Amino acid sequence: MASPTEAQSYDIPDFKFQDGTRLSNVRLVYRDINPSATKIALLPTCFRGRVGTTLTFADGALKNYRVIVVAIFGNGESASPSNTKGFPQSIDYRDCVRAQHILLTEHLRIKAVDAVIGFSMGGQTAYYWAAMFPDFVRDVVVICSSARTSRHNYQFLEGPKAALENAADYSAEDSASQGQRGLNAFGKAYSAWLTSHEWFEQELYKELGFETLQEWDKATTDTNYQGWYANDMLAKLRMWQNGDISVCTEAGSLEEALRRIKNRILLLPCQTDQYFSWRASARESQYLEFAELDIIPSVWGHIAGGGTNKRDTEWMDKRISKFLVHPS
Amino acid sequence: MASPTEAQSYDIPDFKFQDGTRLSNVRLVYRDINPSATKIALLPTCFRGRVGTTLTFADGALKNYRVIVVAIFGNGESASPSNTKGFPQSIDYRDCVRAQHILLTEHLRIKAVDAVIGFSMGGQTAYYWAAMFPDFVRDVVVICSSARTSRHNYQFLEGPKAALENAADYSAEDSASQGQRGLNAFGKAYSAWLTSHEWFEQELYKELGFETLQEWDKATTDTNYQGWYANDMLAKLRMWQNGDISVCTEAGSLEEALRRIKNRILLLPCQTDQYFSWRASARESQYLEFAELDIIPSVWGHIAGGGTNKRDTEWMDKRISKFLVHPS
Repeated sequence: MASPTEAQSYDIPDFKFQDGTRLSNVRLVYRDINPSATKIALLPTCFRGRVGTTLTFADGALKNYRVIVVAIFGNGESASPSNTKGFPQSIDYRDCVRAQHILLTEHLRIKAVDAVIGFSMGGQTAYYWAAMFPDFVRDVVVICSSARTSRHNYQFLEGPKAALENAADYSAEDSASQGQRGLNAFGKAYSAWLTSHEWFEQELYKELGFETLQEWDKATTDTNYQGWYANDMLAKLRMWQNGDISVCTEAGSLEEALRRIKNRILLLPCQTDQYFSWRASARESQYLEFAELDIIPSVWGHIAGGGTNKRDTEWMDKRISKFLVHPS
Repeated sequence: MASPTEAQSYDIPDFKFQDGTRLSNVRLVYRDINPSATKIALLPTCFRGRVGTTLTFADGALKNYRVIVVAIFGNGESASPSNTKGFPQSIDYRDCVRAQHILLTEHLRIKAVDAVIGFSMGGQTAYYWAAMFPDFVRDVVVICSSARTSRHNYQFLEGPKAALENAADYSAEDSASQGQRGLNAFGKAYSAWLTSHEWFEQELYKELGFETLQEWDKATTDTNYQGWYANDMLAKLRMWQNGDISVCTEAGSLEEALRRIKNRILLLPCQTDQYFSWRASARESQYLEFAELDIIPSVWGHIAGGGTNKRDTEWMDKRISKFLVHPS
């Protein structure tokens, strides 16, 4: 195991968000693992990720790397509606990437990173890094994610969003309120998307230590939402729905934006992911100049990419290790 | 076109539901198309089906049939929480089938039906017919459905259910209230399941006359729920979640219950159905003695089976025609 690393934070003074909101102080929370290593990897968190729970590959593919895990805006650690007065309703992946770039360059005095690796919303953030700072990052690994949120994915997110916004205890104004009923309804509307038909059929929740579907449901739709805030979830969710790297460039289309990326990029969708479809990754790979595409052969669906089971995690770790070795 | 047929109704006196509730009067609504024909087909409605909107095949495969479309309990036409005082909270497919059997034998004086054909919840009802009255029905056609609701399907339904039950305007006591916000949240949580990733990718809502995803969303999650009632939806949804034909027999398992079915049965799942997976139908077909399995080759997902597009409807119509011809 990598030695446990405390979360640290950096307050960016005078940060301007994409929507025009200007805040005099915006916090980024991060973990800096193995900080004396020369090679550097950046790992942005996913939708419900914290810097302490994110899969880091720090014992495997990134063993010899300095691994910086950084919380995206809205996760409740970095600046979010729940912890920052005046936080914008509408955030954008570009806000996350620009803030992370400031953290790395101005606070940590880093001149370039060898790899940006992300899962899900972390993967979209990694894609934005390639589009916005192509010379600052060398390689990019995108796990169960996409350069643009698909229409299907967008529509799926409309479900949990509406469940939350219409809940009896939801308040758009009071971001310090958690809204427990709304979060539970959100969790329910989200839950069947996480894995796959075959995962349920094979009762693989048992591999996670749950005896019954009901026990898994309770943990997944209730317990796991404790400590999260309704308006934080919504801010991130809208950012996710609007994900599209073509807004970062002059490119008039996604295809053109993908063609402009010159970074080496590894796409690792999962075969049974119900919302970040491998078909979307396969389409993207056709436009990327230096892409490798490999499909995680798993019935764990989307969460295969998040470190939920050893087999898929080891598979990814090996694949990423191989990718990071440059032919010299 | 078959000539339009008025909906008719029959009030069953003194009906006892599976949960013990006894009502002195329980209404069934049905349409009787081409009533002078000798061959008879029964078509139970689906989750959001009305007797007037159900796909009947009456101009094709069932051209020479008397086609009886019957509304399942909870659809707002037949007895439902919204229109029947004291209607049970918990209903069961066995209630629907026993009531339909009474309608056919005692009111319409029918001694046997040549085919029971159903889509989705209608398909589950058809399966129950085979399990409960194997000698009363000859052939069975199950479209985008299953003999037992899969765990994945069950969990998907937890989403719309929780969205509705936690909505600001939901009342478990007042079944005459529609609960518009709750129904909208329900519709949102349901919407991305209806079709498939590729359907959204190819913007096939345009084939339905919608210019944009937003227009389709508005119709699908809002307009289409007008006239429906929250507690009606929940009664049907729970019946669906508990669907399992093995409760109808002494069989100890689903496999054994399937083995006991001696009817000819045609299973027509759709290749891209996200909740009634073709994989489940393929597994079921292994235990059925006289089953034919054919997979609708379509990106329209679940709703391919409901008559939403001409190509799939024609494909099914041909396949059902072929199936209904008995080798003599």
